[in-house]
Amino acid sequence: MAAALQTLGGGIGITLHWIAFTPTIEQQATEEQKKKWLKLAQDVAIVGAYAQTEMGHGTFVRGLETTATYDPSTQEFVINSPTLTSTKWWPGGLGKTANHATVMAQLYTRGKCYGPHNFMVQIRSLENHQPCPGVTLGDIGPKMESNGNDNGFARFDHVRIPRENMLMKFARVEADGTYVQPPSSKLAYSNMVYLRGTFVMSAAQALASATTIAVRYSCVRRQSEMKPGEPEPQILEYQTQQYKLFPQLAAAYAFWFASWFMTQQHGSITGSMEKGDMSGLAELHALSAGLKSYTTAVTARGIDVCRMACGGHGYSHASGLPALFGGAAALCTAEGENTVMMLQTARYLVKCFAQSQAGKRLTGTVAYLSAVQPSPVAGNRNMSDLGTLVAAFQHRAARMVRHAAMQMQGEMQKGKAREDAWNSCSVLLIKAAEAHVHSFVVRNFAETVQTVEVDESVRAVLTSLCQLYSLYGITEHAGDFLKDGYLTGRDIDAASSHLSAMLARVRPDAVALVDAFDLHDKILRSVLGRYDGRVYEHLYEWAKKSPLNKSEVHESYYKYLQPFLKSNRAKL
Amino acid sequence: MAAALQTLGGGIGITLHWIAFTPTIEQQATEEQKKKWLKLAQDVAIVGAYAQTEMGHGTFVRGLETTATYDPSTQEFVINSPTLTSTKWWPGGLGKTANHATVMAQLYTRGKCYGPHNFMVQIRSLENHQPCPGVTLGDIGPKMESNGNDNGFARFDHVRIPRENMLMKFARVEADGTYVQPPSSKLAYSNMVYLRGTFVMSAAQALASATTIAVRYSCVRRQSEMKPGEPEPQILEYQTQQYKLFPQLAAAYAFWFASWFMTQQHGSITGSMEKGDMSGLAELHALSAGLKSYTTAVTARGIDVCRMACGGHGYSHASGLPALFGGAAALCTAEGENTVMMLQTARYLVKCFAQSQAGKRLTGTVAYLSAVQPSPVAGNRNMSDLGTLVAAFQHRAARMVRHAAMQMQGEMQKGKAREDAWNSCSVLLIKAAEAHVHSFVVRNFAETVQTVEVDESVRAVLTSLCQLYSLYGITEHAGDFLKDGYLTGRDIDAASSHLSAMLARVRPDAVALVDAFDLHDKILRSVLGRYDGRVYEHLYEWAKKSPLNKSEVHESYYKYLQPFLKSNRAKL
Repeated sequence: MAAALQTLGGGIGITLHWIAFTPTIEQQATEEQKKKWLKLAQDVAIVGAYAQTEMGHGTFVRGLETTATYDPSTQEFVINSPTLTSTKWWPGGLGKTANHATVMAQLYTRGKCYGPHNFMVQIRSLENHQPCPGVTLGDIGPKMESNGNDNGFARFDHVRIPRENMLMKFARVEADGTYVQPPSSKLAYSNMVYLRGTFVMSAAQALASATTIAVRYSCVRRQSEMKPGEPEPQILEYQTQQYKLFPQLAAAYAFWFASWFMTQQHGSITGSMEKGDMSGLAELHALSAGLKSYTTAVTARGIDVCRMACGGHGYSHASGLPALFGGAAALCTAEGENTVMMLQTARYLVKCFAQSQAGKRLTGTVAYLSAVQPSPVAGNRNMSDLGTLVAAFQHRAARMVRHAAMQMQGEMQKGKAREDAWNSCSVLLIKAAEAHVHSFVVRNFAETVQTVEVDESVRAVLTSLCQLYSLYGITEHAGDFLKDGYLTGRDIDAASSHLSAMLARVRPDAVALVDAFDLHDKILRSVLGRYDGRVYEHLYEWAKKSPLNKSEVHESYYKYLQPFLKSNRAKL
Repeated sequence: MAAALQTLGGGIGITLHWIAFTPTIEQQATEEQKKKWLKLAQDVAIVGAYAQTEMGHGTFVRGLETTATYDPSTQEFVINSPTLTSTKWWPGGLGKTANHATVMAQLYTRGKCYGPHNFMVQIRSLENHQPCPGVTLGDIGPKMESNGNDNGFARFDHVRIPRENMLMKFARVEADGTYVQPPSSKLAYSNMVYLRGTFVMSAAQALASATTIAVRYSCVRRQSEMKPGEPEPQILEYQTQQYKLFPQLAAAYAFWFASWFMTQQHGSITGSMEKGDMSGLAELHALSAGLKSYTTAVTARGIDVCRMACGGHGYSHASGLPALFGGAAALCTAEGENTVMMLQTARYLVKCFAQSQAGKRLTGTVAYLSAVQPSPVAGNRNMSDLGTLVAAFQHRAARMVRHAAMQMQGEMQKGKAREDAWNSCSVLLIKAAEAHVHSFVVRNFAETVQTVEVDESVRAVLTSLCQLYSLYGITEHAGDFLKDGYLTGRDIDAASSHLSAMLARVRPDAVALVDAFDLHDKILRSVLGRYDGRVYEHLYEWAKKSPLNKSEVHESYYKYLQPFLKSNRAKL
């Protein structure tokens, strides 16, 4: 199924049925509810949308305005959209495709609000697909990409559903309207960790696709003269081109490995949670939020770098790159806006820092926060040693977390409320959290290339790629490493010259490194990134299929241009 | 005309007739040729394209493959596309609209190639718009944006045109085939300077539009709780939102002022050139290449920052931001690919550096290169003083130019060919050239706010904006300032805290600053950026007009979904 959806690309009306509607039933319905709906969903006897986001609220779920008010006299919930901004907005497939939706609404019972809960609502007739009474539906209009998916809106005018349509695996409302608290809300966190892990994987895949296209095309495209009179070189010979593409290629590998880590950790945490051990969840949740934010942001920018590296042709849909960019751009604001996600990570780090100050020894992905020395000793560091590079990233992150936390403490000591201090330090906090995530990605990359079971020749190439990734990060963020003297200007020069050397070293393996992603032409959908390299012939064939080329003289000529030109000529 | 084209947005088939075809006649045709074609073009009795770029060559014009071979026996040129990659590719309006084109082709006469020259070629019949014999035309297919413009392809199979159709204001071919050199090629440079100046202005306008949309929407949108129990604040109150938008807003002003400088300098240089004084041209040409590259790159990224700052709604075409991004993205690769442009600037800077080493005193925009001290003295700098900030940017640029040039010299001394040394230092060279352009933009911004004729209260706001722009640049590129100790970690902390203060100071004037761009709703074409702030009502109205909403049940239901669901239900 995943492969089929992938081949279709960009998403269609039924995509969210599979990746959101059905899993919601699996995860939030009782066994009895599953018997009723899960098979219907799995066999696509009904088709569903996941209706959470509203016109006025996205990431801030507590702010949702749709209400589900329990009426004990009929044992029904009344689903209602009290304001314009409460209109459900954006859910994929909601506009035209879905006949059911899980609707997130503020639960009211016995006069009290218990916050957002999920309800199963039929929205269209199973007979004729007309909207159900009280339900207003529509498509929200064209978007940057993913226009094969009818992202939709829905308004509910006091729509009544049976009490049993509340998804009650966790919280429940009894027949008399009594609200029964869920035993633990931690499981919801675990699902979120999983979902964000899939974003990391999507980012990795998108960046892998873009680098495959750009690296392959850069071996086909020849341009300019490197030396007078010599033939035009493949553009991948230019250092500037390598500097654009290889860090993206390395990041694609780094993000794959980060997504492996997330998958493996989620599995192990789920196992522990089933045994009642919730200890690792908060750490993994914080990491997943930051990783989702970091990897999607780097990926979207990276794809655009790849597009520009393909010159004008990158701008054509023939390249596949505008669609990849549009897809990755959506990842940055969907399912938790990236800035809000990174602030979640920051919040956890500030808490860890305070614990560390209070003498607690930190473990796992944040262990380094208490291990790093506040006053570093500068020295001649070996900037090609992976251990040195990892340590530098950890030092940077620890310093920035400390700096942001201390700044916040300082403002509170001067009398600012905690919330105001948080807001006025939030740029520092975001940067500290990014540095933390970045250091995790570097460390995980380094550990993976050291331990992954591959030929030693492959390990050598991956090690170069990991060095390249790390050195690029250091030179791009040199200020963070120089600021407290941990690295010196000489270290940065050394990093910069090692990086140049790594660009040259990766060059001969670049095509093999993208081929290893094993992305079939049918998945890439790119004339520039074709495996066989026959770019120009197929660019011509692709263009000939343009809708405008169906006739030699386009209809607009007869309608507009001919009379316009004629009247202009008559005036001469 | 410009205003009309602007209102249409994105470009249509006739756009390039106005901004490229007609100006080419104006600039490159003889008086006799102008008599023949200019009025036809100006009155749109003919409609033209500017056919330069080919499938296989863009920015590297010398590499073009289309040939124009002179045949003295008939006094004709033979226009030919000898290879697939010589197919003209991308020219706006070429595919379906134009009936004439200025075709850039390698001029061959008497067995010798004289490089690319421009030729007027009729490509479609004036009677029935059919392609002329030997001419193959078509649209190149859908692109990231600007799909209202039929960017096209053209192939020529030995198409004969009269000798008089070579645009001969500069170079000429006489009846017997004698090639007559142009008196000076400098005028072509002057046109390029002008054209690149228009790119700077386009970048400024695009960034102004995006910031207008995002700042206005950020005052309408309310989200989350800053303090428990308080109403949701306008999202512009969040420091993270200010940090996203205000540097873009400041950059929009900085780029307007840079484009004023370019316009004014181009005017003054043109005056000098008419008197035979070519002295300022090389400097202005180098600056224009770098400014085109820098401003378009920052603008494209900045628009995407604005899009993400509008959350999910930024992704909808209702926001206008995807179209603005697509337009700005095109500016980065069109009319001289940005990396190649920046390397042109670098080449000039390296030359200046060598001249300065040889004792020449540099003037104008590069004067600071010889004035800056190699070994700076660190001290407690006043990081809120504009003069200090400008000096810091100039020091950074001078250091980086010197570093790149010395690195190159070092490699050549070790035996590398100049071209190889150039390539292996090209990343350093690009960064140095960017630093030079950045320092120019900062200095020009600072000088403009000090001298522009405005109320002192307006000057105060602009000064804050200029400080914000400069401080943001320093914190984002802190490594460049810290590396040789010119700024200290303490200076960076001071810059960072002044920047926070500036974000808060600009906040109350933010809406006035975008309103001052005076972009009418008809130009912005954005539901989110509406002047009246009635975003949500109009978002709903806009969505209702989606083509998918023409019928309550979409035709795809009857065609695909109904039978699919039915057969799935039958299997249950």
